Amino acid sequence: MPKDENIEITSETIDVLNNRRSIRAFSDTAVTDAHIDAILGAAVRAPTSSNLQAYSVVVVRDAARKARLAELAGNQKHVITCPVFVAFCADLSRIEVALQRYGHDLEDNNLEMGLVSSIDAALVGMSAYVAADSLGIQGVMIGAMRNDPEAVAELLDLPPRAYVVFGMCLGFPDGNAPKQKPRMPRPGIVHLETYDHTASKAGIDVYNDQLRAHYETIGKETNTDSWTYEVDSKFAARPRNTLRAALKRLGLDFS
Amino acid sequence: MPKDENIEITSETIDVLNNRRSIRAFSDTAVTDAHIDAILGAAVRAPTSSNLQAYSVVVVRDAARKARLAELAGNQKHVITCPVFVAFCADLSRIEVALQRYGHDLEDNNLEMGLVSSIDAALVGMSAYVAADSLGIQGVMIGAMRNDPEAVAELLDLPPRAYVVFGMCLGFPDGNAPKQKPRMPRPGIVHLETYDHTASKAGIDVYNDQLRAHYETIGKETNTDSWTYEVDSKFAARPRNTLRAALKRLGLDFS
Repeated sequence: MPKDENIEITSETIDVLNNRRSIRAFSDTAVTDAHIDAILGAAVRAPTSSNLQAYSVVVVRDAARKARLAELAGNQKHVITCPVFVAFCADLSRIEVALQRYGHDLEDNNLEMGLVSSIDAALVGMSAYVAADSLGIQGVMIGAMRNDPEAVAELLDLPPRAYVVFGMCLGFPDGNAPKQKPRMPRPGIVHLETYDHTASKAGIDVYNDQLRAHYETIGKETNTDSWTYEVDSKFAARPRNTLRAALKRLGLDFS
Repeated sequence: MPKDENIEITSETIDVLNNRRSIRAFSDTAVTDAHIDAILGAAVRAPTSSNLQAYSVVVVRDAARKARLAELAGNQKHVITCPVFVAFCADLSRIEVALQRYGHDLEDNNLEMGLVSSIDAALVGMSAYVAADSLGIQGVMIGAMRNDPEAVAELLDLPPRAYVVFGMCLGFPDGNAPKQKPRMPRPGIVHLETYDHTASKAGIDVYNDQLRAHYETIGKETNTDSWTYEVDSKFAARPRNTLRAALKRLGLDFS
């Protein structure tokens, strides 16, 4: 083991990430337009594949619009109570304008273009999240924007070939930070040179125990199997199985 | 406009993002295992949809393996010269283990599962990138891992239902930082309450001018139209049009 293994290597950014929790309860402290400018100004510097910038961001403060978004997200009340909700969109509309100038179009766009734009949105979203957290502004990502992407797109008046990949509730946290949830054991998810199949599988039962212990600590009801049980309960039924058809209607084919 | 609009709102994290460039030339300064531990230890705290943790990370230092990855990425020599290459993988294999325990499987997995795992990988990857940069370790994301996802998966010995979403070259930069590329005008990509279609379209020609001016400054040959021309040249032909079939063979259906 190299000599420097014991030197603490850290930074404000690393501290922010190491202390990250999803926050769903917010104080009355205002998140100003200047905060949002600073956060999104930094976030748009995230890498973007081939300089495509195939994303857009919609900042929502209006109470009625947040209420409707909350409803579309399966009645998540923090979407209403957060001072600012930010929607991170995959957006191929400017790409299409570019292609049209040279007599081309985006009919039959493919999985690569769906992924490039979705990843662009995710990189900007994650950058915004960590930038916000570095100012004490925290929140939670809302994947449930994919429950009904057409209704969300209509509400935000998105152009064709755009959809909301995820939203984000942001605000100053109210009260104490919730206890941090454990993560899958590192050797099961971080591999050296090639994938360690044994470590990946072995991590699952270790993690079931750790997550169950965490739930007991915070008084949350759980099953003996915890993680595997939750995952099966949620995904055996293939949630959002109509997503592909909905996104195709919005102009992203994923073909 | 609120009184505090003129107060500078910043942090180390925001500075890191605001100064970000893609770095493709590296110094001899070692990136130690302790650095990588600190970077990835922080990165795995990124949000993950429904606590699925549907990603894995493979850290590559071996010269022969980097050389092969460089070749698969279309001969990008920084993949060879970077001290550390990190592959961020969408990984449904642990999800499948969980489902199998209850008599279910991941046959006919859908677009949502493809996106959830790809976004998980992107969130961890972006977190790693900004954590590294906060330590002075910079680099570039390599989307070209999607050129031939099956060859990449084989080289890293990934399990079924996993693929590399993108890679990342990391190292201490060698020499001066390249000039930062301008981004699309903010009003065209950041919208308030609803999407501003006029601003989005108007931003394109403004950006063509800004990007062309940037290319002239750095002595790069360009076309009058710069951005739109580059985008058309690259995407009219639908690159990676076989990605969907390749990922399906790897066990991600995107259906």
